[in-house]
Amino acid sequence: MSGFFITFEGPDGAGKTTQINKVAGKLRQLGKKVAVTREPGGTKLGEAIRNILLDPQQNNLCSEAEVLLYAAARAQHVVEVIKPALAEGKIVLCDRFLDSSIAYQGFGRKLNLDIIQTVNRYAVAGIKPDLTVLLDVPVTVGLQRIKSKGGLDRIESEKLVFHEQVRQGFYQLSRQEPDRFRVIDASRPVDVVSRQVWQVVAERLGDLQYEDDNHGGTG
Amino acid sequence: MSGFFITFEGPDGAGKTTQINKVAGKLRQLGKKVAVTREPGGTKLGEAIRNILLDPQQNNLCSEAEVLLYAAARAQHVVEVIKPALAEGKIVLCDRFLDSSIAYQGFGRKLNLDIIQTVNRYAVAGIKPDLTVLLDVPVTVGLQRIKSKGGLDRIESEKLVFHEQVRQGFYQLSRQEPDRFRVIDASRPVDVVSRQVWQVVAERLGDLQYEDDNHGGTG
Repeated sequence: MSGFFITFEGPDGAGKTTQINKVAGKLRQLGKKVAVTREPGGTKLGEAIRNILLDPQQNNLCSEAEVLLYAAARAQHVVEVIKPALAEGKIVLCDRFLDSSIAYQGFGRKLNLDIIQTVNRYAVAGIKPDLTVLLDVPVTVGLQRIKSKGGLDRIESEKLVFHEQVRQGFYQLSRQEPDRFRVIDASRPVDVVSRQVWQVVAERLGDLQYEDDNHGGTG
Repeated sequence: MSGFFITFEGPDGAGKTTQINKVAGKLRQLGKKVAVTREPGGTKLGEAIRNILLDPQQNNLCSEAEVLLYAAARAQHVVEVIKPALAEGKIVLCDRFLDSSIAYQGFGRKLNLDIIQTVNRYAVAGIKPDLTVLLDVPVTVGLQRIKSKGGLDRIESEKLVFHEQVRQGFYQLSRQEPDRFRVIDASRPVDVVSRQVWQVVAERLGDLQYEDDNHGGTG
C-alpha cells in the first residue's frame, strides 16, 4: 500500500464534511492524488444495504442484524474503494469509519463492545487508518449546528445522553491509540479548526514523504 | 423457552428436507405443535439479503461481506421466527443452521474459522439447538442424488475436494459436541434413515417430557 489513509470521526455536527472538503482541496492544489469517500462509498452492495436500512418495511431489524449489515457494507467499501485507491498511491479521506461504529453502537447504544470491535475488525480486513482526525465538539453545540441547518435524522434525534456516550466513546478510543488519533477542538470557528486540521495532516504526510525518500537527508 | 429446537445438517444430497417433513408429520400426528423453517425463514430482511446474494450485479462481493450478510439474515431469522416459536412451546425443525455456515465457509472455503464462529454465535444471540441431526453421506453419493433430481446450484457444483472438506467439517463439529449431535448414516434407503432419525428425536423429546414432569416416577 503506497497511499495514505485518513479517517475523520466525531459526533454529529462536528463539521467533518466541511473539513474534509477543505483538506481535499489543499491536497489537490499541491498536486496530490486524493480520494474522498464515505460509507456506503458508492458500492452496489452498500447501496442495497442502505436501501434495506432505510426501508420502512424493515422496521423491526434486530440489533445484531443491523451491526452485521453495517459491517458487510464496510467490508465491501474497503475492498472495492479504499484498498484500490491506496494501491494507486492516493491519499484517501474517509468520512467516518470503524471508530464511528464502535462509538455509536458500542458506547452509544451499549451493544456488546467486544463483538462490535471483532466484527468490524473482520470487516476491514487488516486495513487501518494511518491517521484519524477526531473533531470533538460538545454535544449541545453539535446538535445546535445541525438544527440550524434544518432537521435531525433518526440517529441525531436520539436523547442527549446517547450523544454524550458517543462523544465519550470517541474520546476513549483516542486514548487507546494516541499515535493514530489527533483530537481537535471543533467548537471553534471553522477557519481556526481547519488550520489545525491542516497542520495535523501536513505533519503526518511530511513524515510519510520523508520515509519514502529517506536518502534526501531532510527531517 | 419451553419449546425444543432441532436442526438438521449435512452435506448436499443427504436428504434433509425429506427427513424433516417425515419428522414433522409424525410429531403433528402425536398432537405436537411444530414449526418447520429454513433460512431465510420468510423474514423480510432474509428475502432482501437473498435477493442481494442472487443478484448478478453483485458479482464481486468480498468473502467478508458474504459471511456478514448470511449472519445478518440468520440473526433476524432467530429473533423473528425461531425464538417466538420456541416461546410458544413449539418443536422447531430447522433445515441448516449455524453448523452449516461453519462447515461450508470455515471448512469448505477455508475462511477464518474462529471469526466465522464468533460472528455466527453473535448472530444467534444465545440460541443453541437442543439436538442436531447430522445426516452424513459420502460426497459422491450426495452429489449423484442431486444430479438425478436435475442440476446443481453454484455451491453444489464446487469441486469434490470442497464437498469433502465440508463433510469433514460437519464430522469435526459433531465430535466437539457429542451431546448435541447425533450422526446418522444417510447413505442407506430413506425408510431406514427415517426410522433412525425418529428414534433419535423421540428419545430426546422423551427426555424433555420426563424432565418437565419428573414427579411422574417414570424414567
